[in-house]
Amino acid sequence: MTPSNRLASRAVSDSHAFVATFSVPTTGSGALDGLCFAVKDLIDVAGWTTGCGNPTWRATHPVAPVHAVCVEQLLAAGARCAGKTVTDELAFSLLGRNHFEGTPLNPRAPDRVPGGSSSGSASAVACGLVDVALGTDTGGSVRVPASNCGLFGFRPSHDVVSVAGVNPLAPSFDTVGLLAPTADLLALAAQVLLAGEPEPPREPTAVHVITEAFALADPEVRQALRKPLQGLRERFGDRLRETSLAEVAGDGIGAGFPAWCDTYCVLQWAEIRSCLGGWIDDARPVLGPATAASFALTSQLDRRRIAEAVERRERIHRRLRRFLGPHDLLCLPTTPALAPRLAEADPVRSALTSGSGSTYYPRTLALTCLAGLGRLPQVSLPLADAGGVPVGLSLLAAHGQDGFLLDVVRALA
Amino acid sequence: MTPSNRLASRAVSDSHAFVATFSVPTTGSGALDGLCFAVKDLIDVAGWTTGCGNPTWRATHPVAPVHAVCVEQLLAAGARCAGKTVTDELAFSLLGRNHFEGTPLNPRAPDRVPGGSSSGSASAVACGLVDVALGTDTGGSVRVPASNCGLFGFRPSHDVVSVAGVNPLAPSFDTVGLLAPTADLLALAAQVLLAGEPEPPREPTAVHVITEAFALADPEVRQALRKPLQGLRERFGDRLRETSLAEVAGDGIGAGFPAWCDTYCVLQWAEIRSCLGGWIDDARPVLGPATAASFALTSQLDRRRIAEAVERRERIHRRLRRFLGPHDLLCLPTTPALAPRLAEADPVRSALTSGSGSTYYPRTLALTCLAGLGRLPQVSLPLADAGGVPVGLSLLAAHGQDGFLLDVVRALA
Repeated sequence: MTPSNRLASRAVSDSHAFVATFSVPTTGSGALDGLCFAVKDLIDVAGWTTGCGNPTWRATHPVAPVHAVCVEQLLAAGARCAGKTVTDELAFSLLGRNHFEGTPLNPRAPDRVPGGSSSGSASAVACGLVDVALGTDTGGSVRVPASNCGLFGFRPSHDVVSVAGVNPLAPSFDTVGLLAPTADLLALAAQVLLAGEPEPPREPTAVHVITEAFALADPEVRQALRKPLQGLRERFGDRLRETSLAEVAGDGIGAGFPAWCDTYCVLQWAEIRSCLGGWIDDARPVLGPATAASFALTSQLDRRRIAEAVERRERIHRRLRRFLGPHDLLCLPTTPALAPRLAEADPVRSALTSGSGSTYYPRTLALTCLAGLGRLPQVSLPLADAGGVPVGLSLLAAHGQDGFLLDVVRALA
Repeated sequence: MTPSNRLASRAVSDSHAFVATFSVPTTGSGALDGLCFAVKDLIDVAGWTTGCGNPTWRATHPVAPVHAVCVEQLLAAGARCAGKTVTDELAFSLLGRNHFEGTPLNPRAPDRVPGGSSSGSASAVACGLVDVALGTDTGGSVRVPASNCGLFGFRPSHDVVSVAGVNPLAPSFDTVGLLAPTADLLALAAQVLLAGEPEPPREPTAVHVITEAFALADPEVRQALRKPLQGLRERFGDRLRETSLAEVAGDGIGAGFPAWCDTYCVLQWAEIRSCLGGWIDDARPVLGPATAASFALTSQLDRRRIAEAVERRERIHRRLRRFLGPHDLLCLPTTPALAPRLAEADPVRSALTSGSGSTYYPRTLALTCLAGLGRLPQVSLPLADAGGVPVGLSLLAAHGQDGFLLDVVRALA
């Protein structure tokens, strides 16, 4: 599995994971000596135009003059950079299909989507082409492809890993995350980004299995997660608890996932329009049909809803902060459904969350929005499968408890 | 002082504070009913190109399609927007002089700079043209002009107020802040942005007067702050303590302000180059001489220093988090010097922090960087003057304790 110094060109082209391969040498030596990583094409590597998965974007933006801060950190710790990976168009999708650049291979389920928007980063790691990959996660873009491709995926606490050199999508939720084949590699690279001090590993005080999150999942996902949940129960005994969202969040704030998802979507759409709307209006880029449909949603938002959504978000954040002790964990399925089959995943229908079409988006965002609203770190663990199709189980910790969370994940894996 | 529905054109032109005046009506009703606000021209107002204080930027960027989230919040709470204010060029200065757009009036000290980069927002409030103004603060750009112009200035905890629709400068430090003539107006507008719940006011547990910060200040600043410090001592008794930076931050992390300032500058320069360097290399904009000198610094940075600076920043952040209880405060002079005189403030010499020139920048950043490194909220209070020239005193609280801090400020003012 250890990648050679040059990526095998056949494997690279079969994976459809990369927009470019190259070798940027390490600038230092440390915890990542000898490893190589890939970078989602939403993150700057000096000398390359960050394409963001759209040809007009690539043509109308300058070459990145320097590496993003997160890339500098990995290079300084001894890793080398092997290439840039396909992203869903403008990072605005969870499927992993790019109208212009194709669909990276999900080697664990080749007839299914890899998940997005860090699709190429997930594919590159899952195909064994790199040791670890940088992704970005606004609404699930690291966690969903990690779950779909049978990988470990890490979304950090907000405002801990620098987003300088990363194209903004929705700044209140944008994070730089990681995909890795093992918990050890994940923790190793994550500790470099977090720049944390090693602390003695701690046992969780409580692991809250969120009832409504499992109820939302398809039967095959629930079934697949039964065994890993049983494993957690054996390990943690009565510290593993069935907890309802109402207990976590208190009453009176729309204590159901659909209401949380709505709050998230209002803010995400408002911010995406701020970040990309001017360019779209001005450059009139050619957009894939699914991306065009998604952006239409952001234009249709009644922006008088924004202030109220900020208030609801802050209420949810405060309740989660009060509920979660420093060594408490939340446990949910990473996604409520298996990765859609390539033949069935209609990106346009999936993009339109408010129609009679697919419910994949609202159901998935209902689970993934919890980390974003609460500013919490989350790891998706590849602990299960349904007939060979990967199913991820997620653990979340309190804000700033990323190191503790990664230690628990290593101990479990 | 209450501004009329239309800004008096004579007063507006005398202030040199605005790049455009207009009236965007409120979209709701609430805590800010009847108030009007101005917006720094680094923040989007729908229908206007955000100029960022540079003519080439204005000419090469599209019209903002929507208001920034922070603008939406104030409009929804009942305030109306009266115009956009001058910013220092690309927000990369603390002086308040714009080579292209002029120097907004500091009405409290007309022969001195207003301070920047939220120079026009400070001037508009200090001239009584608006009730409150939005600014941005990366390295001091709200706090410094607040201190220079005799205003209350608020920099929030990181990641609490949305930066969507705000042009990024250095994302690890960028915040949206406020300038106001009174503590009541400041708190009123700040609570809208923070979307917090009202909590019962709490007395501070401890107010730590940071010895090194006062030692760094000029004698006239120390002298001016003697009386307000005496006032704090009478109010808080032995809860007011002289505390050294070494006590706050522990040993072994370069426990002096110069080392903290160096850490801040490495990260700020690294991120500014990521955010603006591509555009500068590509668009080859005409820059004012001071801005050109500042950007030259960002290009000269040895980027192998970034990873180590992130580690030092996180160490400082953790020490501050351990030290500061939820109702503890830190107290420092907002700036170490009076606002430079217009005749003496050479922007180019000031921009070059590492020469034999002015020491205004490194000394000022040494004090302002504490909030940025620690992700802490800070309020500059206009409690003093030196021969009529305003001098601000600053209070900082633990991350997320913005509401508590604003309550203390109201009680003091």
